[in-house]
Amino acid sequence: MVYLTRVEHFNAAHKLYNPRWSPEQNEAVFGKCANANWHGHNYELYVTFKGEPDPDTGFLYDVKKLSELIRIHVIEHLDHRNLNMDVPFMKDKMCSTENLAIAIWNQLEGQLPAGVQLHCIKLYETPRIYVEYFGR
Amino acid sequence: MVYLTRVEHFNAAHKLYNPRWSPEQNEAVFGKCANANWHGHNYELYVTFKGEPDPDTGFLYDVKKLSELIRIHVIEHLDHRNLNMDVPFMKDKMCSTENLAIAIWNQLEGQLPAGVQLHCIKLYETPRIYVEYFGR
Amino acid sequence: MVYLTRVEHFNAAHKLYNPRWSPEQNEAVFGKCANANWHGHNYELYVTFKGEPDPDTGFLYDVKKLSELIRIHVIEHLDHRNLNMDVPFMKDKMCSTENLAIAIWNQLEGQLPAGVQLHCIKLYETPRIYVEYFGR
Amino acid sequence: MVYLTRVEHFNAAHKLYNPRWSPEQNEAVFGKCANANWHGHNYELYVTFKGEPDPDTGFLYDVKKLSELIRIHVIEHLDHRNLNMDVPFMKDKMCSTENLAIAIWNQLEGQLPAGVQLHCIKLYETPRIYVEYFGR
Amino acid sequence: MVYLTRVEHFNAAHKLYNPRWSPEQNEAVFGKCANANWHGHNYELYVTFKGEPDPDTGFLYDVKKLSELIRIHVIEHLDHRNLNMDVPFMKDKMCSTENLAIAIWNQLEGQLPAGVQLHCIKLYETPRIYVEYFGR
Amino acid sequence: MVYLTRVEHFNAAHKLYNPRWSPEQNEAVFGKCANANWHGHNYELYVTFKGEPDPDTGFLYDVKKLSELIRIHVIEHLDHRNLNMDVPFMKDKMCSTENLAIAIWNQLEGQLPAGVQLHCIKLYETPRIYVEYFGR
Repeated sequence: MVYLTRVEHFNAAHKLYNPRWSPEQNEAVFGKCANANWHGHNYELYVTFKGEPDPDTGFLYDVKKLSELIRIHVIEHLDHRNLNMDVPFMKDKMCSTENLAIAIWNQLEGQLPAGVQLHCIKLYETPRIYVEYFGR
Repeated sequence: MVYLTRVEHFNAAHKLYNPRWSPEQNEAVFGKCANANWHGHNYELYVTFKGEPDPDTGFLYDVKKLSELIRIHVIEHLDHRNLNMDVPFMKDKMCSTENLAIAIWNQLEGQLPAGVQLHCIKLYETPRIYVEYFGR
Repeated sequence: MVYLTRVEHFNAAHKLYNPRWSPEQNEAVFGKCANANWHGHNYELYVTFKGEPDPDTGFLYDVKKLSELIRIHVIEHLDHRNLNMDVPFMKDKMCSTENLAIAIWNQLEGQLPAGVQLHCIKLYETPRIYVEYFGR
Repeated sequence: MVYLTRVEHFNAAHKLYNPRWSPEQNEAVFGKCANANWHGHNYELYVTFKGEPDPDTGFLYDVKKLSELIRIHVIEHLDHRNLNMDVPFMKDKMCSTENLAIAIWNQLEGQLPAGVQLHCIKLYETPRIYVEYFGR
Repeated sequence: MVYLTRVEHFNAAHKLYNPRWSPEQNEAVFGKCANANWHGHNYELYVTFKGEPDPDTGFLYDVKKLSELIRIHVIEHLDHRNLNMDVPFMKDKMCSTENLAIAIWNQLEGQLPAGVQLHCIKLYETPRIYVEYFGR
Repeated sequence: MVYLTRVEHFNAAHKLYNPRWSPEQNEAVFGKCANANWHGHNYELYVTFKGEPDPDTGFLYDVKKLSELIRIHVIEHLDHRNLNMDVPFMKDKMCSTENLAIAIWNQLEGQLPAGVQLHCIKLYETPRIYVEYFGR
């Protein structure tokens, strides 16, 4: 079993805001992350796959094709978007890095070729904060 | 003459959108950077000062005080903000990294203590794109 | 279960010196790390927490409050200190990165809010050497 | 149990080319990685060891000696080499990052001192692609 | 005047070998960099442009178009190539990082749009060695 | 003219303390940097040389020999040392990063081979603070 990680990048706007709370409560809990006019991040996304190398290629799987899967199912939905407004799979969810990592897992899990399993989604919100999700 | 650089960080939302143009023209020129609902970045800001070291301290100037000046005049205006909507000193300007670097220079230039000159504003929009401005 | 990591930084002096050994034996085992007048490092500290995201916030826990816990129980004791002389929780211990990572775990483990578990302490001594400790 | 990681570096040339296939099939599967005249990489190698710290030193093991083991058994065979042509332990293997990580594990596993176990080989081929191998 | 930098990446094989010298002299001067079977690197390329921002866009120039120019005139010639064998503009030149940086400058200098000047080519051969060239 | 930079690393202890001042004044000016028992840093040192490439090698100069000069005249004096106590060329100087960069310049300037000039000393004290010195 080997683990293969591909690092991707996207930029997005978001805010942390619970619509069931008052503006004052949102401000109290989320501080400047609740700014009504949004803020944003350069997200760094590490997707780790696992499986056995193919004897003919030496590859777990062609990393360009895995990168293309990430692009189609994740990056095109998130890059240069507003996470709260523009992303169907984040609809009605709090746009925390935790929830975003889980949603990226769910976007990718059913899309992988035979012999390749999803192992981890690691998502940097800033260079000093990241979340990892292993699917359970 | 020594050059002292302090690296700071802020997160913000923005879009590239010229209000004198049609939506189609904005889309043609700015592509996904014109997304109506914004996107955002983790900006890395390098501020370089220059001058002579003080014989009593060995410092060009106390870097904590310089960092505090950057916080008051720049970071508090930009961090977790919408650059197009929330920042008086970017009002009526295109929110490009070029214009933002020049505006940060102008925010800092008149605020420095005696003996310290501003040398360069270097601003990363993503890990692969940055702008430098030297004041002229 | 999600894993949330916060990266912190501290600077400290230390030396590697076993007081039960002769100076010659210390020199033989620790080389220049045994320099009597100390040396020092910029330590990068990765603290990983785990638990379930809160449905109201999307957070495992407010990362600013976790960062404040790390500051109070770890960083304030270590930053700009001499690890051998100034830190009660390193007293009578060899100041290796291994022992420092274990001691940081012990400082934090009893301090976490309900629903948040400590998962890993990862400590870089230099950009090319780091230690991880998972509590057992 | 603590985990100690040492980061090393080597530069090498390679190509991805299956000698049992036609040039056209190699081109179709490996694209520009099959370039007959080779290409190359700066490989970053993370070797993680695990075990108990020694009470007298605080060390899992002297990291300089572990670095020397990596140098003798791995780096000297790979650095400034052609992975396909110059490396006995890669002979008749596809030179993928997956196979190279497994081969590095096998080079090191039998060489470790008592009390030190090999935990992980992590190998960056580029800053955006890496492989991990845990020995099974 | 603002300075805009775009960072690009390519992988390539090369060797340092002067064909007018004996193998022994090459070995004496270039050491393992003269390995007959090549070695290689992940090159990081920083291209810095300068000029005035356009009032309508805020841009020195559209960075995607500049990136495309770098791709056409530089990256496509170098990426996944053998610098000594596959690159017409390096023919009969020593493949040092110094000469490669100068050659990249010459590839780009005549290709820039009106109002954009080339300022600097900065080329990392490894994370610890880089060359800068300013065109004279 | 090309510019060649070599990055080196050293670890050291220091404190900021003016012996002509009272402890209270040192505390007021230098804060925790004045800690009597020292603190320390991982210093990253960028040494930039300039000159013309040699036609026979393509090199400004053999970077291994330049690295060796830096090792002999700088790193061996500073690495795993106490900058205030152990370094003759810092004696009676305030151990600021500014003064250390100037002292490193002075250590190297007279030692370079014909055709190689010293251009810049760039010294990171932490990942967020660095000083540059160009010799005047």
